[in-house]
Amino acid sequence: MPTLPPTPVPWEETLDGTLGVELLEWTPDMARGRVAVRDALKQPYGLVHGGVFCSIAESIASIATAAAVYDDGMIATGMSNDTSFIRPVTDGYVNTEARCRHRGRTTWVWELDHTDDQGRLCAISRVTMAVRPRPEGA
Amino acid sequence: MPTLPPTPVPWEETLDGTLGVELLEWTPDMARGRVAVRDALKQPYGLVHGGVFCSIAESIASIATAAAVYDDGMIATGMSNDTSFIRPVTDGYVNTEARCRHRGRTTWVWELDHTDDQGRLCAISRVTMAVRPRPEGA
Amino acid sequence: MPTLPPTPVPWEETLDGTLGVELLEWTPDMARGRVAVRDALKQPYGLVHGGVFCSIAESIASIATAAAVYDDGMIATGMSNDTSFIRPVTDGYVNTEARCRHRGRTTWVWELDHTDDQGRLCAISRVTMAVRPRPEGA
Amino acid sequence: MPTLPPTPVPWEETLDGTLGVELLEWTPDMARGRVAVRDALKQPYGLVHGGVFCSIAESIASIATAAAVYDDGMIATGMSNDTSFIRPVTDGYVNTEARCRHRGRTTWVWELDHTDDQGRLCAISRVTMAVRPRPEGA
Repeated sequence: MPTLPPTPVPWEETLDGTLGVELLEWTPDMARGRVAVRDALKQPYGLVHGGVFCSIAESIASIATAAAVYDDGMIATGMSNDTSFIRPVTDGYVNTEARCRHRGRTTWVWELDHTDDQGRLCAISRVTMAVRPRPEGA
Repeated sequence: MPTLPPTPVPWEETLDGTLGVELLEWTPDMARGRVAVRDALKQPYGLVHGGVFCSIAESIASIATAAAVYDDGMIATGMSNDTSFIRPVTDGYVNTEARCRHRGRTTWVWELDHTDDQGRLCAISRVTMAVRPRPEGA
Repeated sequence: MPTLPPTPVPWEETLDGTLGVELLEWTPDMARGRVAVRDALKQPYGLVHGGVFCSIAESIASIATAAAVYDDGMIATGMSNDTSFIRPVTDGYVNTEARCRHRGRTTWVWELDHTDDQGRLCAISRVTMAVRPRPEGA
Repeated sequence: MPTLPPTPVPWEETLDGTLGVELLEWTPDMARGRVAVRDALKQPYGLVHGGVFCSIAESIASIATAAAVYDDGMIATGMSNDTSFIRPVTDGYVNTEARCRHRGRTTWVWELDHTDDQGRLCAISRVTMAVRPRPEGA
């Protein structure tokens, strides 16, 4: 896996740390992560909040893109996140697998499947990343 | 404003509590909320994480819809969340305002603008909610 | 393949007829179609117009859903169409393949890949269909 | 209104000509267009095909962006088109009004409302355009 570039905010203090997102694997082609379900990730009716699926998708696509383009002097920032919710999750893990669909000079596009611990599809995301030259000094 | 229905998980223990989302106003036509920026909501480079915009949009659209249809014996669940990121936010608040574009029998559609404390547009979301009869006993 | 239900407007007089969309295969799991590129499908710079990818995705997802639910007394109507454009097409065919990701009681979700005649990915679509009881007399 | 740049395919021979799209107004802030409904724009059940809303949104956002950036030596190409369908249209015009939400160096974002002749909201679109330097010789 490409090395993760150093960052100003330590990982455990970011949103990923707040939510407990675990990044398990990342390459320019695919990436995987998961998050353990608990009340702090739910909406008031006891289901995992839709924003959690969006967040884990955004994190996985961002890290995989950023790691892949870093050695070329580029950074990656999110442009859009389209997530459809298919089945509620109430316990276990949200398991997310990302497939890279496009690696362009200025944009990368990922599609992500979110499944529960029984392997059932619970949400799908499409994340578009902008790839830009790294600012001087960054 | 319509009364918020009672919920199994107390508000402060949900994702909204985790992120610090404040709901400020909700009617069937519009709704508003905000979240105070801090490291725990950021990605590793110090910008507010894209998932935060998605999450606050999802919360606001969900609450406003759920409150409006509750007296008709209905519940609201998220179907999709499409968010585009326009300008990074690093401090202050993310301020989100929702406008209801469609109130159908089975779906409601909201468009949301996210601005920073200088009033600059930082992200836009479209959230589609499914409206369904409340299960017996719920 | 499920039989296509009879329709008030003859196929060749609809948008599919106007654009020349060919439906090649449809099951509840997957579907395929294509359209031959010509000037009448292009934007002014000679590339296939983005609306063509949206249109063929909408047609394929609609037909496959409608055919699958017809015997249960249901109809299918489009709820949303999210299409990302990846690579321009200037000649040959736009070849579209659809994969059903969700078959719910009230919504079906399809993901579609659009490729050129060299097999390169040119666009991706996500289409959500609403499934509703057929009106009396229809 | 900014002048439309010259194009290799004459307007009336493009998809806009095929569908009968009329561009009524375009500035860097807003744009308007419409299309007269007829069978050739419908799906088999007699409603305007979802792809028509996508197509007119794509055309309006593309033209308005292209015209605005042309004098800076830039071109505009579609990146994504997210359209939600709210109410069927069977006759009259589809009237589309576009509002520019973001004018960045590399992307522009438009939101578009589609209404029928009674002024009822029938669909909404979000179109993201990529803005790039014009190729040499173009």
